[in-house]
Amino acid sequence: MASFSIKQYSDWQTLADKELRQKSLDNIHWQSPEGITIKPVYTADDVSQKPNLPGFPPFTRGPKATMYAGRPWTIRQYAGFSTAEESNAFYKRNLAAGQTGLSVAFDLPTHRGYDSDHERASGDVGMAGVAIDSVEDMKILFNEIPLDKISVSMTMNGAVLPIMAMYIVAAEEQGVEKHRLSGTIQNDILKEFMVRNTYIYPPEPSMRIVSDIIAYTAEHMPKFNPISISGYHMQEAGATAVQELAYTLADGIEYVRTAVDRGLEVDDFAPRLSFFFAIGMNVFMEAAKLRAARQLWAELMQQHFQPKTEKSLMLRTHCQTSGVSLQAKDPYNNIIRTTVEAMAAVLGGTQSLHTNSFDEALALPTDFSARIARNTQLIIRDETELTRVVDPLAGSYYVESLTESLIAEARVLIDEVEALGGMTKAVESGLPKSRIEASAALRQADIETGSATIVGVNKYSLPEEPEIDILAVDNQAVRASQLSKLQHLKGTRTQSACETALQKLTTAAEQGSGNLLSYAVEAARNRATVGEISSALEAVFNRYQATPQMISGVFNKAFAEHKEFDTLQAKIAAFTKAQGRKPKILIAKMGQDGHDRGAKIIASAFADAGFEVLISPLFQLPEEAADMAIKEGVDVIGVSSQAAGHKTMIPSLIESLTGKNAEEILVVCGGVIPPQDYQILKQAGAAAIFGPGTPVIDAADEVMELLIAD
Amino acid sequence: MASFSIKQYSDWQTLADKELRQKSLDNIHWQSPEGITIKPVYTADDVSQKPNLPGFPPFTRGPKATMYAGRPWTIRQYAGFSTAEESNAFYKRNLAAGQTGLSVAFDLPTHRGYDSDHERASGDVGMAGVAIDSVEDMKILFNEIPLDKISVSMTMNGAVLPIMAMYIVAAEEQGVEKHRLSGTIQNDILKEFMVRNTYIYPPEPSMRIVSDIIAYTAEHMPKFNPISISGYHMQEAGATAVQELAYTLADGIEYVRTAVDRGLEVDDFAPRLSFFFAIGMNVFMEAAKLRAARQLWAELMQQHFQPKTEKSLMLRTHCQTSGVSLQAKDPYNNIIRTTVEAMAAVLGGTQSLHTNSFDEALALPTDFSARIARNTQLIIRDETELTRVVDPLAGSYYVESLTESLIAEARVLIDEVEALGGMTKAVESGLPKSRIEASAALRQADIETGSATIVGVNKYSLPEEPEIDILAVDNQAVRASQLSKLQHLKGTRTQSACETALQKLTTAAEQGSGNLLSYAVEAARNRATVGEISSALEAVFNRYQATPQMISGVFNKAFAEHKEFDTLQAKIAAFTKAQGRKPKILIAKMGQDGHDRGAKIIASAFADAGFEVLISPLFQLPEEAADMAIKEGVDVIGVSSQAAGHKTMIPSLIESLTGKNAEEILVVCGGVIPPQDYQILKQAGAAAIFGPGTPVIDAADEVMELLIAD
Repeated sequence: MASFSIKQYSDWQTLADKELRQKSLDNIHWQSPEGITIKPVYTADDVSQKPNLPGFPPFTRGPKATMYAGRPWTIRQYAGFSTAEESNAFYKRNLAAGQTGLSVAFDLPTHRGYDSDHERASGDVGMAGVAIDSVEDMKILFNEIPLDKISVSMTMNGAVLPIMAMYIVAAEEQGVEKHRLSGTIQNDILKEFMVRNTYIYPPEPSMRIVSDIIAYTAEHMPKFNPISISGYHMQEAGATAVQELAYTLADGIEYVRTAVDRGLEVDDFAPRLSFFFAIGMNVFMEAAKLRAARQLWAELMQQHFQPKTEKSLMLRTHCQTSGVSLQAKDPYNNIIRTTVEAMAAVLGGTQSLHTNSFDEALALPTDFSARIARNTQLIIRDETELTRVVDPLAGSYYVESLTESLIAEARVLIDEVEALGGMTKAVESGLPKSRIEASAALRQADIETGSATIVGVNKYSLPEEPEIDILAVDNQAVRASQLSKLQHLKGTRTQSACETALQKLTTAAEQGSGNLLSYAVEAARNRATVGEISSALEAVFNRYQATPQMISGVFNKAFAEHKEFDTLQAKIAAFTKAQGRKPKILIAKMGQDGHDRGAKIIASAFADAGFEVLISPLFQLPEEAADMAIKEGVDVIGVSSQAAGHKTMIPSLIESLTGKNAEEILVVCGGVIPPQDYQILKQAGAAAIFGPGTPVIDAADEVMELLIAD
Repeated sequence: MASFSIKQYSDWQTLADKELRQKSLDNIHWQSPEGITIKPVYTADDVSQKPNLPGFPPFTRGPKATMYAGRPWTIRQYAGFSTAEESNAFYKRNLAAGQTGLSVAFDLPTHRGYDSDHERASGDVGMAGVAIDSVEDMKILFNEIPLDKISVSMTMNGAVLPIMAMYIVAAEEQGVEKHRLSGTIQNDILKEFMVRNTYIYPPEPSMRIVSDIIAYTAEHMPKFNPISISGYHMQEAGATAVQELAYTLADGIEYVRTAVDRGLEVDDFAPRLSFFFAIGMNVFMEAAKLRAARQLWAELMQQHFQPKTEKSLMLRTHCQTSGVSLQAKDPYNNIIRTTVEAMAAVLGGTQSLHTNSFDEALALPTDFSARIARNTQLIIRDETELTRVVDPLAGSYYVESLTESLIAEARVLIDEVEALGGMTKAVESGLPKSRIEASAALRQADIETGSATIVGVNKYSLPEEPEIDILAVDNQAVRASQLSKLQHLKGTRTQSACETALQKLTTAAEQGSGNLLSYAVEAARNRATVGEISSALEAVFNRYQATPQMISGVFNKAFAEHKEFDTLQAKIAAFTKAQGRKPKILIAKMGQDGHDRGAKIIASAFADAGFEVLISPLFQLPEEAADMAIKEGVDVIGVSSQAAGHKTMIPSLIESLTGKNAEEILVVCGGVIPPQDYQILKQAGAAAIFGPGTPVIDAADEVMELLIAD
């Protein structure tokens, strides 16, 4: 048999230098956004630990010994739109076609605790999720879906009490007692304050609600996960893998602390905590992130709470392929991206998975796109043999090293949070949020300067974009249907019983006594609505209003030697000189859509370019935005829309400006707006529409041209 | 810091047993088609070797020290169709959109050494590749493509002398001397005899041609790979990863031996040998296969030839995602499959890659599908960070163990080949071919019994298949254009010079003197055609005719307890009893299409079910198939078409039967036939059309029903 001489790293360096010719070896060391130096080659010398076997703490290799070889992950597609009837039909079609669990997307008014007939709900009813106003809607939503067999995940954080209560009562009236229910409620309010903004009450009472739900399920619902501690939305907001990992686990520690502080035994609830991560395009980073998360969680739990059962150390997670990696341009590329990300999630050992549809940067999935997304998982599960071996990456020098680096880097951020007094305090300080926003701005700058490539967007783009079929929801029809159902409900329920139940809820909130979920269940059973239950609490807790903040300097730095940015700045400077003041823009978020990553990036970039920038508070009515714009004397309003409310809210805003004789204020808009809607918005008077993927420099330049022409 | 007790394998077994409840641990050990037992968990104990650093023998971790971190793989899409003009335009569009190398698909008449005006060429001209008759076509094919900058791969094995010669002359007339040309000619004739069947001459003279090309490039074309030793077509024909690996490397050893035997120094040509593998859906198996191939090749080369330069030990390879994994049903799933396979190729460290288009189970790629296929590579290259780290799987317990297993299993097959006297002898014995055909039949049986899942085909299938836009080539128009170009060529060339050059070629072939490629270049320069050059050699070497063989018993065994198969057998038995003879079918391949995997599977399955089965020789004219069917008194002809010739050849066959008063013989067909063509074939009189993915049991049953009704 042939034998070959074993080489040393120095031999490799010599050969690598030769291959690289003029380039230095440093050039092929990559500084990842996480702050980890990725080397071109890894060997056994880069790994200091050997992971324990799967199924044993710290669970680096997986929470189960047999993992997918014993049972594959759950195929759980997040979905919901329009009415409960339509969503129910969609769910049933998906289950018949191979999906194995449900995950409900609620519309934004439901998230924010408004019934469909609330004035602030109007444009958002049924748009980015299903409209649920009462237990009657919830019963329709799960009609003919056996809740003792199909596990249900519910993405709900703000109106978590009424929704959880209605789910319990709907099951009860389907004949399924609550102890037989399995599933998850997101119930992760800390990350709402940090990045997603679908909170209702201030942090303190919000944390009480979280722990009431944990306590309730610990007592009554042994198969139900009372919380899904979510990094997903952090990555969506721009977080790096390290930030997502660190802040998610820090959130987790904070929840455990809160529950322990109210007197719960850690082992009574910790085994049912669940997690939720986003999986982006950096395959090995994402797979290593899940391995690191499991190991670090076990270490942190052991360190802080010394639980008695190993299950309390075990991190189980749902994953979703990254929404922010989806592109509106050349959208079929998203099928490829989602496949890559799904593989990373599976290589990392996720317990359940949502794969995005390729059209989700434009609208909600159609049956066609949802099928491809679901088949992505079925193909990976059934055709690639990836389920045969537990943690197949274990031992890989690169992946083990990356796992260790992620843990070390995340510990630095977690220690910082701890030094601030834990995550509630850290959130109040705004530090995690601003770190994430800085990462988002850096990423955007990398894309615009071309130092990061997005195929079909900033490179290899199509001369002409294809128009694809999208799912359009008729918001006003859904709203009308909800209003009639609400009317019927209120006309047929026993009003006094309903009012008594609501009063009890308010009292419990006031006195800090009892479990709020118990009272909410009682109210739901008596046909109180989502809005009524939320109001009963709001009467005591009040509604939280955040103050928008903005980072600056990132774009100035990234675009330091960028010609187009210089030209733009010169144009703005000329305007400023001529007018004696800077051009002034209001970046507005209207309706119940709290996704403000885009708005924040636009604000930072416009400010760095030379605009005077105001950011509106979240959740404005169109007339509130108009009033603010007029009062502040802005030249232009830039509306950022991510949740499909644009078709009603932008025309309302322009009407409102006109009504107030302020039609000289330009309205431009951007975000998730399908080309099918451009004509409607232009006819309504929008001066420009910036589709997803528009470079902010181009957007700023077009705004300046409009102002100059004006 | 928390610490956790390190567990032993026995602890894992105990826990795994508990998780599996009633099931035994054996149930989650998987017997792969390769004969390798895949365990549910791997640890450091499963690995016996530590791989050497990349760039050093045996190159397990890659032929280069810096791999993709230094320079990414070449994006080389295999394409060609219709005329040289149309293919040239397609190439230029693709290069502009991010492709980095060319790979030419020639039509089947060109492969088989026929000009477009040959009677045997008719239905195949321009269909499955571009029609090239002379150097004039070749010049058009590369018009405005600088051959000193763009490397060109040519899939050519039969007519390798005229095509290589015309490429050299086209470059010369473009002003690029041959020593500056870079690229690859497939020139792998052994696997043609084994699986692909586009040979022209018998094995012995074919091997002389191979070695003449190796000798010629060693002397004149230092940047050109004279051979691409191809396992790809073996996997397409049904080979397992071990079979593909073993027989490809055994082919390689045979070529080196042949070249050394004619007096070449191994180090003068071995560094320019290149390889070509298919990448299927079993991600880690395929990635490990490339690692194993590199290591095993280095070991074999060292063992047999003791080269002086390390480069002679180095296996460099092109890869293509698996065509056989593409499905005609629910075709968008193929985007997902191709993404998975492309990732496996990249993880394995390929030097260049072709990604299939999602519509290729139906027709040739359109611009739309070709874009998605190309973008699959661009996205993996530019968005996943997979290029940052060399051989990222190195050290993985599973992957290292799999690499070792693949090497061990492949050595068993290679030793068997050596014992038969090397691959030329082994090919003559038919052993490798029959082993591959048995694997293909087993795989088909697994799919039909449902023990293997193909999403959208045998599970989760669509109620109604979508019709997708396909690229249709107008065969008769292409043929007419080629005929007119041939006429012009023959009318304008210096006939005497052309004839002299061809005569010299024949003489060299006869006398075994000089290098045939040198003479072919001279003939091409004097405007001899592909057909003329081939004939000049055929006059001496003759044309090879293989005898079709068939395996039996695989389906009987796989379907042992399969109700539908029992029903089918009973139906056939009843027919046999009633008629006093078995139903008789001729499985026919017509035209120049040598892909006989489908035909062989159908033949085996029909025979196992109870039919009397004849297989036609390859390359029949329609009237030859009709004559054979009449002479043998068959009930039905089953035409297998993989290369788009069906639209002319099936109507011809039926006309021929009718002309011979044998219209009672039914004609059915299957293979790569897009739904768009069904109507034409039915109108011509085809009794049934079986699209790709049709279970053979269903096909056999439908044939029986037709015979009974007849």
